[in-house]
Amino acid sequence: MTQPLFITFEGGEATGKSTQVRTASSQLRAAGHRVVTVAEPGGTELGTRLRRLVKHGRMPIGARAEALLFVAARAQLTEEVIAPALEEGAVVVSDRFGDSTLAYQGYGRGLDVEELRGLNEAATGGLRPDLTVLLDLPVGVALMRRAPRGGDRFEAGLASANEEDVAFHMRVREGFLALAAQDPDRWLVVDATLPRGEVARRIRERVAALLAG
Amino acid sequence: MTQPLFITFEGGEATGKSTQVRTASSQLRAAGHRVVTVAEPGGTELGTRLRRLVKHGRMPIGARAEALLFVAARAQLTEEVIAPALEEGAVVVSDRFGDSTLAYQGYGRGLDVEELRGLNEAATGGLRPDLTVLLDLPVGVALMRRAPRGGDRFEAGLASANEEDVAFHMRVREGFLALAAQDPDRWLVVDATLPRGEVARRIRERVAALLAG
Repeated sequence: MTQPLFITFEGGEATGKSTQVRTASSQLRAAGHRVVTVAEPGGTELGTRLRRLVKHGRMPIGARAEALLFVAARAQLTEEVIAPALEEGAVVVSDRFGDSTLAYQGYGRGLDVEELRGLNEAATGGLRPDLTVLLDLPVGVALMRRAPRGGDRFEAGLASANEEDVAFHMRVREGFLALAAQDPDRWLVVDATLPRGEVARRIRERVAALLAG
Repeated sequence: MTQPLFITFEGGEATGKSTQVRTASSQLRAAGHRVVTVAEPGGTELGTRLRRLVKHGRMPIGARAEALLFVAARAQLTEEVIAPALEEGAVVVSDRFGDSTLAYQGYGRGLDVEELRGLNEAATGGLRPDLTVLLDLPVGVALMRRAPRGGDRFEAGLASANEEDVAFHMRVREGFLALAAQDPDRWLVVDATLPRGEVARRIRERVAALLAG
């Protein structure tokens, strides 16, 4: 089967995103599709290096610079991996893509969302997902899920959550919901408090409908 | 004296840019100005790290990603150094700024110049130099000046110049000249084949006129 399809997964921390990315990729592979699975901001050597710089670099990085680094990683991932895979008729499943920049740096950190949309356009040559799955979880639930675990700078921030962190993650969640509401044809919003099997079932249904039609 | 002024120097390799940046900075300092001198893409810890990544990282970096990394470094430099210095009434002298992205990644590598202008705007919050000095040198002269020296990836490329390199540097030079022609009030084009003292004199004259009013 050679029907190119670009599916992205979005959502906050502890929403079960990477589990669902794996599940969806396996199911598509089992159904005979060639599947390429990537995770932002990694997926390329440049992306991995930039991710390390942002998360562990211990240097001042302003909101604009941070957004531009994530967008640079996205440009490289698109050129090096996603666009060639789609051209060959693969299904590409990405853990995060452009909407993360809009939600985190736009709604979360207060940068202009339209300006960020322009950056995404410039970086990806206007590539848009066919389907974006939002795993939606109240921030309080995410905090409880995350609390007992260790992790990196972002995750530790959420675990030892102060009021500012909580407010930030609430803005990000509301941002994702607003983006989904603006473009309901592209987005599937799934309640991430549901059992993971039920979450997977809803995603599978929507993907099947997309492949059928 | 507390008259904020933002002066940038642009041009290709081997044009004597860093010498003129030093000379202009010293003269302004001697005249009693508080002067902050920076060089792109360094000038901040993030910029230095990104410069190293692009020049010595030995990984695929596409034209779009490269442009975005330089613009990210610029965003950080603007926020961390340039904007605060200007707010305190300093003269800021920068070895390269936004126009380098337009010339190198736009005219040189063929990315859309208007799109790159938008990136610069987003990164710097619309900050524009009061004066941009272009040290203009025919590519053939630059090649001869550079030939005997070693250096990094960019410079080595110019030294062992193949036809593609030469064509690239010719597009960059023409790009700078086109940018200067589009905005003659902001740009001072100086013939960099002149003796360095004469080059410095022409720059000093224009800076003095700017400071006078």
